[in-house]
Amino acid sequence: MSRLLIIKIGGQVLDEEAAKQSFLRDFAHLDGLRILVHGGGKIATRIGEQLGIQPNYVNGRRITDEKTRDLVSMVYGGLVNKEIVARLQKLGCNAVGLTGADGNSLKAVKRPVGEIDFGYVGDITPEGVNSEFVWSLLQNKLTPVFAPLTVADGEILNTNADTIAATLAIALSKQAEVRLIYCFDKKGVLRDKEDAASVIDSLNEKEYQTLKKTGALADGILPKLENAFDTIHAGVGEVLIGEAADLIKNTGMKTVGTLITA
Amino acid sequence: MSRLLIIKIGGQVLDEEAAKQSFLRDFAHLDGLRILVHGGGKIATRIGEQLGIQPNYVNGRRITDEKTRDLVSMVYGGLVNKEIVARLQKLGCNAVGLTGADGNSLKAVKRPVGEIDFGYVGDITPEGVNSEFVWSLLQNKLTPVFAPLTVADGEILNTNADTIAATLAIALSKQAEVRLIYCFDKKGVLRDKEDAASVIDSLNEKEYQTLKKTGALADGILPKLENAFDTIHAGVGEVLIGEAADLIKNTGMKTVGTLITA
Repeated sequence: MSRLLIIKIGGQVLDEEAAKQSFLRDFAHLDGLRILVHGGGKIATRIGEQLGIQPNYVNGRRITDEKTRDLVSMVYGGLVNKEIVARLQKLGCNAVGLTGADGNSLKAVKRPVGEIDFGYVGDITPEGVNSEFVWSLLQNKLTPVFAPLTVADGEILNTNADTIAATLAIALSKQAEVRLIYCFDKKGVLRDKEDAASVIDSLNEKEYQTLKKTGALADGILPKLENAFDTIHAGVGEVLIGEAADLIKNTGMKTVGTLITA
Repeated sequence: MSRLLIIKIGGQVLDEEAAKQSFLRDFAHLDGLRILVHGGGKIATRIGEQLGIQPNYVNGRRITDEKTRDLVSMVYGGLVNKEIVARLQKLGCNAVGLTGADGNSLKAVKRPVGEIDFGYVGDITPEGVNSEFVWSLLQNKLTPVFAPLTVADGEILNTNADTIAATLAIALSKQAEVRLIYCFDKKGVLRDKEDAASVIDSLNEKEYQTLKKTGALADGILPKLENAFDTIHAGVGEVLIGEAADLIKNTGMKTVGTLITA
């Protein structure tokens, strides 16, 4: 079975020119099959402000109204995605930018309205991934670059980039040995959110549940860890969490970041 | 040899909901290989105004400064392209949205600075088309949908959609029998721009040169016709110019619009 890296990057890599260029250079020079999933960084917020689109919250939860959906479709699907693809091409990596609509690669369900109407948000499962299409691109030496957008019933929907990366990892674990890599702004999962040196080398679900109860884990890491454990339980071999600059240079073995295990 | 339709649509189809949906339905139901190339319509201008990006002209020629390039990358590559792709998916057409950066499909040269510096504008030739990639998508029953954006030296560039359609037609005429279809807001090329009923059935270059001298042709049609004759001279079998609603329903034979011949 071939090895496939699925790497998710977010704001901390996209918002700073030096970090972005350095990451893309390392990513372009990786050997073998790989997929990049990106978030949007601060640029959607900035352009939204210029367009007078106010972030919309209900009970503390962010809502994707129609204007916001069009904003993220422009910014994630156009500006951010195409800049990454163009730069990767220059670096010798034959990238192809995708949203879930392209090749029906990520078919979602518009989140059902419960207590909150989240608006234009897509929920996806591994069954919604067009693995055949994504795999055929990889086999043709193309590198898919996913914007965090999915499709349902003829409409573009906003979907969390971590979730897209995890769902792709699960779906493609039938074709390849997948390592899912979550890049964020810390060296790894911190045992104590106040101590940047307290990186946990490896974390299983039991340890996670114990740590969670202590309140020592940062709030922001919790959904990432939930996604990570879902991925591991669904049969993906490895999930690694840490800083982009470290992880991308050490894809051959587990030497940095936090390795998530069952 | 397979038959391949390359259809270019512009503002008149994109700016009106009923025309857009009707066109996309007809396009989705076409048989055989097809590529869609779209312009941006008025939406880039509208969003540009909201963002305070002023159209920039030098000696009457539109300049693509960096802000305008980012605007068209967002609007053409994101908003417009992804909406078309999502709708086509719902209509049963397995579309994949592309800019020239994706799969290095349209490698351009940034227009050299002469009397005017046009800014982030890409000039393309048939040699810059990655026909192998585009053809492999078509062979896999995918329908490429091109935004009018190309790539050079790691950067997204603005390129005229008519030119992209013509260049794709020339490049792909090695693989297929290509019919290039230019959709615009008239029933065809008018012998007399003041008379909407004066549609020319077929036009060769000699007749065109004669008509041009009389001043009876609309200014807007001239670059389209230049592209059309370039395409015919480069060996593409057929170029048809007319209204989207007519042309898309009559792709089997020349019954409507203006047929361009050598």
